[in-house]
Amino acid sequence: MNLRSDSDRIIRAALAAALPDTAVRKALDGADFGTGRLVLVAVGKAAWQMAHAAVEQLGSRISSGVVITKYGHSQGDLPGLKIFEAGHPVPDDNSFAATDEAIRAVSGLTADDTVLFLISGGGSALFEKPLISRDSLDALTKQLLACGADIVEMNTVRKRLSAVKGGRFARLCEPAHVMSIVLSDIIGDPLDMIASGPAYPDSSTCEQARAIIAKYGITVDAETAKLLDQETPKQLDNVTTFVTGSVRQLCRAAAGQARALGYEPVVLTASLSCEAREAGTFFANIAQFHANDGKDLAFIAGGETVVHLTGTGKGGRNQELALSAAAGIDGMDNACVFSVGSDGTDGPTDAAGGWTDGTTAAKLRAQGVQIFDVLKNNDAYHALKAVDGLIITGPTGTNVNDVSVLLIRGKK
Amino acid sequence: MNLRSDSDRIIRAALAAALPDTAVRKALDGADFGTGRLVLVAVGKAAWQMAHAAVEQLGSRISSGVVITKYGHSQGDLPGLKIFEAGHPVPDDNSFAATDEAIRAVSGLTADDTVLFLISGGGSALFEKPLISRDSLDALTKQLLACGADIVEMNTVRKRLSAVKGGRFARLCEPAHVMSIVLSDIIGDPLDMIASGPAYPDSSTCEQARAIIAKYGITVDAETAKLLDQETPKQLDNVTTFVTGSVRQLCRAAAGQARALGYEPVVLTASLSCEAREAGTFFANIAQFHANDGKDLAFIAGGETVVHLTGTGKGGRNQELALSAAAGIDGMDNACVFSVGSDGTDGPTDAAGGWTDGTTAAKLRAQGVQIFDVLKNNDAYHALKAVDGLIITGPTGTNVNDVSVLLIRGKK
Repeated sequence: MNLRSDSDRIIRAALAAALPDTAVRKALDGADFGTGRLVLVAVGKAAWQMAHAAVEQLGSRISSGVVITKYGHSQGDLPGLKIFEAGHPVPDDNSFAATDEAIRAVSGLTADDTVLFLISGGGSALFEKPLISRDSLDALTKQLLACGADIVEMNTVRKRLSAVKGGRFARLCEPAHVMSIVLSDIIGDPLDMIASGPAYPDSSTCEQARAIIAKYGITVDAETAKLLDQETPKQLDNVTTFVTGSVRQLCRAAAGQARALGYEPVVLTASLSCEAREAGTFFANIAQFHANDGKDLAFIAGGETVVHLTGTGKGGRNQELALSAAAGIDGMDNACVFSVGSDGTDGPTDAAGGWTDGTTAAKLRAQGVQIFDVLKNNDAYHALKAVDGLIITGPTGTNVNDVSVLLIRGKK
Repeated sequence: MNLRSDSDRIIRAALAAALPDTAVRKALDGADFGTGRLVLVAVGKAAWQMAHAAVEQLGSRISSGVVITKYGHSQGDLPGLKIFEAGHPVPDDNSFAATDEAIRAVSGLTADDTVLFLISGGGSALFEKPLISRDSLDALTKQLLACGADIVEMNTVRKRLSAVKGGRFARLCEPAHVMSIVLSDIIGDPLDMIASGPAYPDSSTCEQARAIIAKYGITVDAETAKLLDQETPKQLDNVTTFVTGSVRQLCRAAAGQARALGYEPVVLTASLSCEAREAGTFFANIAQFHANDGKDLAFIAGGETVVHLTGTGKGGRNQELALSAAAGIDGMDNACVFSVGSDGTDGPTDAAGGWTDGTTAAKLRAQGVQIFDVLKNNDAYHALKAVDGLIITGPTGTNVNDVSVLLIRGKK
C-alpha cells in the first residue's frame, strides 16, 4: 500500500483527461467540414493548446486562423495561424487588436465555410471589441466594480456594449457555420457565461440590464444607454456547440483511475463550493467513519472551494483543504487526502495543491507547527512544503476547477 | 413522493433508537450490587429517563438518590429519589444546589456500597460545583461560547475549575464502588469528555487548558489561572464504566428507516464537526451532483457541527445547516435536507432542527428574506418558522448528537 503513489497516479490521470488537447481531439473526431474554407478562432487561457491540438488533427485543412491567449501562454508558432497575447483579467489594446483580426478572419465567408471556434476560460477579457469609447467603458466598469455588482450582473451589462459577446460573434460569422468547442471552467457549464458566450444565445435581456443600472444608480451616457436597449441574439441557427473538459470529466477520470488501483470510487459532487478548510474537515470526518470498513475507498469531490483570508501567509484553496483534513486524520495509518487545481496553480503559489495523511500533523508538531495556527494565517504552502505535502505539476494548460480526493485503504 | 413525511419518519425512527431507557436496561441486565447500599446519581438531559429505567428494573434495591436534569425535563416523581431541574447550557443556582445534594448523598459510604451513576449529555452545566466565584465562571463561559471553542476545548478548561468534573466526583465517592452508565453524546465516545467525565480519569492536561486560553485570547483572573494549574485524577480504581447510546446508533437507525422507505442510504460520517453552514453547502453540492442519477438516495451524517456567532438572531446549528443547504438546492424539485438534534433542542430554541427543500429559498425571497443575510445574523429560526421549516419534537430525553440527512427522489 502506497497512498502517495496511488494519489500521484490518480492526479495524473485526472489532469490528462481534462487537458484541452484530449478534449479537442475527442470533439473533432469524425467531424466533417465539407469542401468550404475552415477558419480557426481560438480564444482563452487554453487557446494555444486547443489550437495546437486542432492543427495536429486537421493540418492544412485549416485555411487560416487567429489565436488569442493570455500573456506568457503562447508556446510558439502554429502553421497558418496568427497568434496574439493580450490582457487578462482586464482587456488591453492587444485584446482589441486581436479581436479585430479575428473578426476580419471570419468576414466574407459563405454558407459552405466553417469557423472552428475554440473557447476557454479568460475569454471575456481576451476577446473584446467594445461598441463604446474606451473612456466610457472604463467609467462604467469602475462604477460596476465599486457598487458591488456580481459577475453575472456585470456581464449582463457589458455584453450589450460589445461587438462579439452574448452571441454576437456567431452573427458576424454568418452565413458560415460555427463549430464551437467549449472547455468549461465554470461550475454547471452555463454556456452563455463562459468567455461571455460569443457563440451562444444570450439568456440575459435588455430589461435585466436596465434593472441593474437602476438598482445601483449607475450613470451612463446617451451612447451607452442606447446600446443597453439593443437586444443580444436569442437564437443562433449557424452554431453547433460541444462542451468538453468539465469538472465532471475530471472527477470521472479520477474515479476511473482509483477503480483501476483497486479503490471503490464514490463521487460526492462536481460542484463543491464551501469553505476550503471546512471541506477538509468534512473529508476527515468521512475518513474517521470509514477507516475501519475494511474496504478500499476513494471519495471524490470536484468543484471550487473558497477561502476567506484571515492572515497574510501563502497558500491556496487546495492546500488549505488538504491541510485542514490532516488535523482530522491525525494518527490514522490508512488514509490520505489530496486536492489539486486542474490548472496546476493553487493560489499565488508554484504548487497545484496539497497532499496529507495521518502522519502530517505529527510531523508538523515535531517542527513546532500547529495546523490551526497555519490555517488562521492562510499559510498552508509553507507548512505543506515542510512535510513534503505540496503537489507540483507546473502549468497544465487547462482549467476545469479542482478535484479533491480521500483515499482509504481497508484494514484486512 | 412526499419528502417531508419521509423525513419525519426517519427522524422518529432515529430518535426512538437512541432513547436512554433501552440503553440503561441493557447495561443493568445481570448487574450484581452485593449487599451494601446502592445510591443512584443521575445527571444530564436524559437523567430522568435513565433514572426511571433504573427504578423500573431495580425498584427498592436503590437506597436513595439524586436526579439532576434540565428545566422541563423531569416527568414527575420517582420513588426514593430527589429530583432537581437546573440551568443548561449555563449552570445556575439550582445546578450548584443539586450538585451539593449529590455530593452529600455519596458522602460517608463504605467499600461495600455502590454509586449507580447515570450520565448523559448536558451534565457539564447541570452537574457543577465551581471552585471559583459565580461571576468569574459566568464570564469565562460566555467567552468560551462566543469565541467558537468546541465542546472538547470548553470542557478541558472548565474541568479544572470544578469540584466534580474530570474524575473528581468519583474521588468523592471513595471508598464506594461507582458503576457508571454513560449515554454518549460526544463523537467517538471519549469518556472523560461526556458531562466533563465526573467519574472517568481525565486525559486532558493543564498544559492543554492553558493552550486553549491562549488560542482564543480569553482573559482569566488570578484565582482561575491558579486552578488551571491543578491537575485532575489520571487513574480511578473504584469505577466501572458502561458506554451506550451513541451517534452511530442514531445514524444506523436513520439509514435503516431510509432503506425501508426505498432510499439507498449512504452514511458519510458519524463525526461531522465542521461549520454548520458549510456542511449545509456540502450537502447541497452532493444534491446538485446526484439529483439526476435516477436513484432514491439518502446521504446521512451524524455528529455535531459548530456555529461561529456573527449576529444576534435566534437559531441553532441544525437550523443553520438546513437553511444553508436551501440556498444550494434552490429550484430542485426532488431533494430535501434536514438536520436534527437528538435531544430535541437546537440552540436556545424550541425547535429540534430544520428542514428545507428546493422551494424554501423562493418562499423566503417572496417574503423579502435572503438566506445569506439570515445566516449572517444567525437567525435561522425565524426564517425557517416563516416557511414551515422547523422540526419540533419536544425534549426527547436523549442526547447522542445530531443527524443530518439529504434525501433525493430519483427522477424516472
